[in-house]
Amino acid sequence: MVGSLELNVSAAAEILSENFDPKAFVAEPLPPLVLSNGDLGDGGGDVKNMQEKGREIVLGRNVHTTCLAVTEPEANDDFTGDKDAYMASVLARYRKTLMERTKHHLGYPYNLDFDYGALAQLQHFSINNLGDPFIESNYGVHSREFEVGVLDWFARLWEIEKTEYWGYITNCGTEGNLHGILIGREVFPDGILYASRESHYSVFKAARMYRMECEKVDTLVSGEIDCADFKVKLLANKDKPAIINVNIGTTVKGAVDDLDLVIQTLEESGFTQDRFYIHCDGALFGLMMPFVKRAPKVSFKKPIGSVSVSGHKFVGCPMPCGVQITRMDHINTLSRSVEYLASRDATIMGSRNGHAPIFLWYTLNKKGYKGFQKEVQKCLRNAHYLKDRLHEAGISAMLNELSSTVVFERPLDEEFIRRWQLACQGNIAHVVVMPNVNVDKLDDFLNELVEKRSTWYQDEKVKPPCIAADVGTENCVCGLHK
Amino acid sequence: MVGSLELNVSAAAEILSENFDPKAFVAEPLPPLVLSNGDLGDGGGDVKNMQEKGREIVLGRNVHTTCLAVTEPEANDDFTGDKDAYMASVLARYRKTLMERTKHHLGYPYNLDFDYGALAQLQHFSINNLGDPFIESNYGVHSREFEVGVLDWFARLWEIEKTEYWGYITNCGTEGNLHGILIGREVFPDGILYASRESHYSVFKAARMYRMECEKVDTLVSGEIDCADFKVKLLANKDKPAIINVNIGTTVKGAVDDLDLVIQTLEESGFTQDRFYIHCDGALFGLMMPFVKRAPKVSFKKPIGSVSVSGHKFVGCPMPCGVQITRMDHINTLSRSVEYLASRDATIMGSRNGHAPIFLWYTLNKKGYKGFQKEVQKCLRNAHYLKDRLHEAGISAMLNELSSTVVFERPLDEEFIRRWQLACQGNIAHVVVMPNVNVDKLDDFLNELVEKRSTWYQDEKVKPPCIAADVGTENCVCGLHK
Repeated sequence: MVGSLELNVSAAAEILSENFDPKAFVAEPLPPLVLSNGDLGDGGGDVKNMQEKGREIVLGRNVHTTCLAVTEPEANDDFTGDKDAYMASVLARYRKTLMERTKHHLGYPYNLDFDYGALAQLQHFSINNLGDPFIESNYGVHSREFEVGVLDWFARLWEIEKTEYWGYITNCGTEGNLHGILIGREVFPDGILYASRESHYSVFKAARMYRMECEKVDTLVSGEIDCADFKVKLLANKDKPAIINVNIGTTVKGAVDDLDLVIQTLEESGFTQDRFYIHCDGALFGLMMPFVKRAPKVSFKKPIGSVSVSGHKFVGCPMPCGVQITRMDHINTLSRSVEYLASRDATIMGSRNGHAPIFLWYTLNKKGYKGFQKEVQKCLRNAHYLKDRLHEAGISAMLNELSSTVVFERPLDEEFIRRWQLACQGNIAHVVVMPNVNVDKLDDFLNELVEKRSTWYQDEKVKPPCIAADVGTENCVCGLHK
Repeated sequence: MVGSLELNVSAAAEILSENFDPKAFVAEPLPPLVLSNGDLGDGGGDVKNMQEKGREIVLGRNVHTTCLAVTEPEANDDFTGDKDAYMASVLARYRKTLMERTKHHLGYPYNLDFDYGALAQLQHFSINNLGDPFIESNYGVHSREFEVGVLDWFARLWEIEKTEYWGYITNCGTEGNLHGILIGREVFPDGILYASRESHYSVFKAARMYRMECEKVDTLVSGEIDCADFKVKLLANKDKPAIINVNIGTTVKGAVDDLDLVIQTLEESGFTQDRFYIHCDGALFGLMMPFVKRAPKVSFKKPIGSVSVSGHKFVGCPMPCGVQITRMDHINTLSRSVEYLASRDATIMGSRNGHAPIFLWYTLNKKGYKGFQKEVQKCLRNAHYLKDRLHEAGISAMLNELSSTVVFERPLDEEFIRRWQLACQGNIAHVVVMPNVNVDKLDDFLNELVEKRSTWYQDEKVKPPCIAADVGTENCVCGLHK
């Protein structure tokens, strides 16, 4: 121990040396390019090499081929303005691409219709809500007043008192699921995670990250959790508490798990409220469902532990974000005080985007509960329109009652899928009808689809796929089922 | 099983009922306010009640008292413009607060000096790089070309070939640490996590989340990891692989762990390269160190597994973000293909902010390696200026050689701490000298501190704290040590 102490002191002394010259920097800061052959290069030209050698391209397209390299400024750039001009041209081209892509987007549940012009003035600030939203950090450039205002709005929507809830604005739906499931695990360290097969992939990622036992539960054709199978699995694991992920709108089919039936199944299987924890993944529909009359209600008056919803989906936001609400009791189990923050560590992330809460606050204020109701109504109406027109055109399609996600046969042509940015799985694709998707856009899409199909399937030997297994025979109009 | 199947079909049929009327919505979408006493209320007035009953306020101030409630629009708002006027006034006031707070900020390592006016045009788009940066998703509104350009720049800085690395732009430093440590655990499922006591709190959070064994290693007075203690702990756990978090700048003291000595200690303790994984947490200094001559180099030519750095710190960015670089081999261990994304799940988050990469790309292009070198030089020079002036004024202070973080005695007055937004721990506070902190700002701070101190310590009975335990006797000028 003495030896170790001596080492400490001498090392410390050297580090704190008074001889340090702060002007002694590396003479040439530009690091040499590293290339496979060890030569210096110009930064391009090794894409082919890369593709041959390294990256395993599993799906989609490889971006390295089209990336916008960062280049070192020239000494006279300030004088010539060449670099500024180059960057402006890149950005102008990019903006055009974004407009084009936004116009044709149909596949992902993002509301692309928003105008945050009034907030552009805030982009100049580094707004960071690090730590707990309810406990002000020493870092003053934050937006907690907005964040808590937004959280209160959601707490009211999901029926929990201001004094009883805790929550925060997350970076995305995944963070909400990671947080909710982590609370579940901290409340029940030996709990088993139950989630339907059609749950978002982040739920299974959480199980792996957190080293939790996980039971995948079967689904109905609609995509809902199959509570009969759930019961079988609960009864086989009666000795351990249950942590359940309930989907308020699955990713692919927009199916809503029946929360009441899930609770009933737990009770019937002998799980009392002190032996289960329910996290509701409301990514998209968490915000739509409260405005649909016949929807099973997501409410903290029921024995649920947490609800998460995405902010960039139905609300619409330039960057991904989400809202996570849980019970105050639970968060005290999870959190740790961090003096450096002068706040509490109860979130998954540390530094937190302070702009997102202001975007949400702005839209919630503008639209209000009534505005969201109108938009939900419009979306469901347009989704029905799309499903009906697909059926009329002899195309297999399904629409769950509480959903604006229309599932249909996967288009044959990948270029068409990419053009309309459709999310696909196996033989099915989907369109999520969001507030920015109007009838005109749907007509454009439908007309193009019908026209293309006539060429894809002109040869009698190529048939549209049967998707009865995905959508049920009553929604499939393939050769066998029509 | 037959019973369960029947249940499925009947439930599905009900959901897909043709009688569904999409116009059947809840008549009154406005949820009633939930209050403790069960009555309906006006949304205010229950703050006191809350404080009495619920929230455990551990540190800092409670935000619920000042939050900006979201209010429901009135029917005639569009006509009167009252709501728009109200929101504009809130935002204008908020902007003024942000300017004031930005002006006085000294404590956190965020570069608040940036001008992204040229990028304001992009705020209108919902840019999302969901999934893997190198594999284009079906969602077209992304910025992967920028993201990969930024990653290539960092790969070059940390000396790893384009074909050999994988990386992504994270939401913050914590996400980088969560990712790096998760890779380490997936590579060595029974590995023990070693991290110095002065590591960022997210490192210990990761150990808890991932259910990893964790050994806290002692530190030197400088804040560096004590490799003598590290060796003792390694030798006591020779049967299990080692996962090490190396700090490239600790949070509080800005201490840089000696990477070479860490590797040497591993080798001396009998850990060959196939039995350890090193994650470098370079939150702030990961980007400054390459430009300091005598700094130990962070390089993938050494046996390290991953490096993370924050983007909102030295670079400066409106919202938190970070860069994570690892080896291609490792990421294949971690990742899962997700068809819905038409991409690969190798990141912690799912949806990912597509604006952050563009902010980083913009600044890297503007400044280049040479620009960062100049800024690092300026920061270190100003940090020395601050430390010297503190010493001259008889105030205990320490500055690590490779750092721009000046540690000094904690000011007595909490209002002063809050005004300058100083991060504190025990008896010490720190100022992180960033590119936006110039000599004028430091002089303002110093003059105010010296003036205030003369009142705090005018009574002989109140003495400035001894901080020798934190900064070493040679840096402490308390009554005992001066």
